[in-house]
Amino acid sequence: MLNSSDSIHRLIAQLARLPGIGRKTAGRLAFHLLKVPREEAYELADAIRDLKERVGFCSICFNITEDDPCPVCRDSERRRDTICVVEEAMDLAALEKSEGYRGLYHVLGGRISPLDGIGPDDLKIKELLTRVDETIKEIIVATNPNVEGEATALYLSKLLKPLGVKITRIARGLPVGGDLEYADGMTLARALEGRQEIDQ
Amino acid sequence: MLNSSDSIHRLIAQLARLPGIGRKTAGRLAFHLLKVPREEAYELADAIRDLKERVGFCSICFNITEDDPCPVCRDSERRRDTICVVEEAMDLAALEKSEGYRGLYHVLGGRISPLDGIGPDDLKIKELLTRVDETIKEIIVATNPNVEGEATALYLSKLLKPLGVKITRIARGLPVGGDLEYADGMTLARALEGRQEIDQ
Repeated sequence: MLNSSDSIHRLIAQLARLPGIGRKTAGRLAFHLLKVPREEAYELADAIRDLKERVGFCSICFNITEDDPCPVCRDSERRRDTICVVEEAMDLAALEKSEGYRGLYHVLGGRISPLDGIGPDDLKIKELLTRVDETIKEIIVATNPNVEGEATALYLSKLLKPLGVKITRIARGLPVGGDLEYADGMTLARALEGRQEIDQ
Repeated sequence: MLNSSDSIHRLIAQLARLPGIGRKTAGRLAFHLLKVPREEAYELADAIRDLKERVGFCSICFNITEDDPCPVCRDSERRRDTICVVEEAMDLAALEKSEGYRGLYHVLGGRISPLDGIGPDDLKIKELLTRVDETIKEIIVATNPNVEGEATALYLSKLLKPLGVKITRIARGLPVGGDLEYADGMTLARALEGRQEIDQ
């Protein structure tokens, strides 16, 4: 392309490395950035640099944080006898947003997925085991309710059971606001399986 | 969100300003950038800065370029009696890629769109008029074949006609590889209207 400079090609290539961004979208974003005021583009560039410079991982739970340990691990108001295990820091953020949990977390950094070449040693599982002592009463396994998440949950429960700690799995069922008619069979089966008595 | 630092919120906000990127996608991209090696994130940040520092607009045709005038305007091999008018530099890039055109260009920087508050004065139309002299034989209006593109084309043709220059519009019809069955009525009507005799 005669009109396109090396700079724009380089930016398109960089944007196309992002997940879910193909070359077409990358091109559209690059041309957009070309048109916006210089400050707006710089703000984005600086935000990316800033993120990598300031944000790291909590040495206890591997949550993302600007300070180590992270605010959750430092929070004295939280229950310290329960650890909720999640795949990614985004999952932690989602659970925090729900305000349904006031214990500690452990971020695995992924899920066991042989197809992607991710085994137990690639996750923060050893680090989880070192956290489990007599002060820990329950470990809630909140990996995603899909094949890999379930496999990871099973692996963890086998590993943790000998330590004498209670291991629970988040409930799978119909999403609130969902519709029975449109739910898949697996979800319906899980929803029936996990039925609970109604308190009168 | 207790786990999320200011840095990540700031990056999410910046990414969400990009066209077609909502807050959810912005979050996913930000967490992705958090996980990639530092160098990879810096390469993206630098590519953005670099773009804004090095790339500008051609003072003749308003194509994007690192040098002024742009390579197309400087190219002595090209026909200088024909100007192809496009909305955006991306359209110019697409036409160049097709290798079907060897004349000059003029990038309007958008299309007339009252709903978006874009009038003729917001486009490089005055600049186009100053380029039209006796050396220009034809102006090909290659704005997009949609309502706003057509309105812009009509506006330009009315403006240029008094200057005694030949004004043409790119053909609208069925895309190559397309299927009559799935074409919309408007496209079919245009394809019939623009039918050409088959050379024997």
